[in-house]
Amino acid sequence: MASASATASGGCQKIRGTQLHELLESKHNVLFDCDGVIWNGETAVAGAPEVVRALKQHGKRVFFVTNNCTRPRQSYVQKFARLGFADIGEQEIFSSAYCSAAYLRDVVTFSGKVFAIGCPGVHEELRDAGIAVVEEEDDGPDVNISNCALDPDVRAVLVGYDEQFSFMKLAKACCYLRDSECLFLATDPDPWHPLRGGRITPGSGSLTAALETASSRKATVIGKPSRFMFECIASQFDLEPESSLMVGDRLETDIVFGINCGLSTMLTLTGVSTFEQAQVYKDSGEPEKKDFVPDYVVESIADFLEALEA
Amino acid sequence: MASASATASGGCQKIRGTQLHELLESKHNVLFDCDGVIWNGETAVAGAPEVVRALKQHGKRVFFVTNNCTRPRQSYVQKFARLGFADIGEQEIFSSAYCSAAYLRDVVTFSGKVFAIGCPGVHEELRDAGIAVVEEEDDGPDVNISNCALDPDVRAVLVGYDEQFSFMKLAKACCYLRDSECLFLATDPDPWHPLRGGRITPGSGSLTAALETASSRKATVIGKPSRFMFECIASQFDLEPESSLMVGDRLETDIVFGINCGLSTMLTLTGVSTFEQAQVYKDSGEPEKKDFVPDYVVESIADFLEALEA
Repeated sequence: MASASATASGGCQKIRGTQLHELLESKHNVLFDCDGVIWNGETAVAGAPEVVRALKQHGKRVFFVTNNCTRPRQSYVQKFARLGFADIGEQEIFSSAYCSAAYLRDVVTFSGKVFAIGCPGVHEELRDAGIAVVEEEDDGPDVNISNCALDPDVRAVLVGYDEQFSFMKLAKACCYLRDSECLFLATDPDPWHPLRGGRITPGSGSLTAALETASSRKATVIGKPSRFMFECIASQFDLEPESSLMVGDRLETDIVFGINCGLSTMLTLTGVSTFEQAQVYKDSGEPEKKDFVPDYVVESIADFLEALEA
Repeated sequence: MASASATASGGCQKIRGTQLHELLESKHNVLFDCDGVIWNGETAVAGAPEVVRALKQHGKRVFFVTNNCTRPRQSYVQKFARLGFADIGEQEIFSSAYCSAAYLRDVVTFSGKVFAIGCPGVHEELRDAGIAVVEEEDDGPDVNISNCALDPDVRAVLVGYDEQFSFMKLAKACCYLRDSECLFLATDPDPWHPLRGGRITPGSGSLTAALETASSRKATVIGKPSRFMFECIASQFDLEPESSLMVGDRLETDIVFGINCGLSTMLTLTGVSTFEQAQVYKDSGEPEKKDFVPDYVVESIADFLEALEA
């Protein structure tokens, strides 16, 4: 019998037990998305802490690759500990906020200031990387887009998830982007995120779409499915695509990211996307939909435990 | 010599004097966009009040067709008077706010409440049309998208230009649109607007793009280039497309609108689009760009004065 990893490219194959054991044996690196994969909100996916520990005990390297830009990495370290994950360090965590800062520092060797739309995660990662950020000001009641101050040193606009998003932030960003030399970055393209109780909240991709329309420009997207987050890991660790597995819950970001980077891909059903959606992409026959079809599907990463012991 | 109107379909023809005289002779109705055509901000385009008066004296019917949704029509009447235009009445003014209200009242015979993102113009026109609108509440500091109140009677979301646009408004609209029965309307698709001093401000189209991305839905657009604003005029006046001329300053809205409705089209160069941009569309040879090419181009509608006297 051929091994699972040799047979299932883009196969959307439900996998567990011995086949999953063989797949994990064939990989040295496991990249996990966070939201919907290892936790949902403040609750760890059942068994996830044990899975991460067991993978490491089996000599695997584990990385966390998240489009969530709300927290700085130090806050992720605390969340991992709070939710029962042992010994997760900053160096294992690649968030879109951290990678955006790394892109500015290492790829474009940025100088000038960044006008950042985003949560504290974005601002703190930029500052930690030595990138100057425009301080947010409380515009008075008589300040509007016609008369507000614009910082002449701004050379980049970065858009991430921001619950304080406002018309003035959008309008200021729009004015900065009139200078074609001003970089336009987005932490990630996620259109929305699920909340408890069935509600959803707009994602960075939604805010970016507003600015793309207003500025007639396209953002450079740092987060998944862009390849940059993998390059960011690979620049710090010796990482071969063929020995790496990407595990995620969103076909349009996690799975496309894995395929873009030449990784094996696995959908886990504890988050946003469903097995049926993956099947629809597979059965559509449209070539451009092939990038949305995972190699493998598991109900939960908890299935790894049994497989590792098999 | 053939008349101007017979020779210049999609021809991007610069026109004045006798040819413009012949064109105006052949039309009974003149539809003007406002911003960039008859005024810029609080300044009338030089000669525009005289042009409107002269057209009426020559027996033409004049309509104002604007995507600007910030004001109710009564406020437009006051602005026309303030800027020296004589005797302009509400019935001649078709704004995207008024037409959105008319669409809800007359086309979909709406019942329920509208969650409206927009300036007073939108709210007042909805109320004048007898449409119930969700009252804006000042959410307290502990209110967020997870716990905020949502009105169970909302059956439509309408997005227009809104300088008070916020993450909470976007997130609430997004939640309402999860109900596939909830209508999703946009006053207009304008991506941005010029301000004095070289700045720009995001338009309704920018805010709509955010909500389209977050909701995974497409808005029904009421304003230009949608046909509805012409249908709205035609339902109140006996208006034939072939005897009507659309004059605007934006190729992507005004000119496309005119072509969508079967009108003759004229670009005036006192606003956003340039003659060079129109030429680029014309010379591109791409079939889908033909709808961006006006039949005629004038430097300013002030050129009408000489032509009417010719």
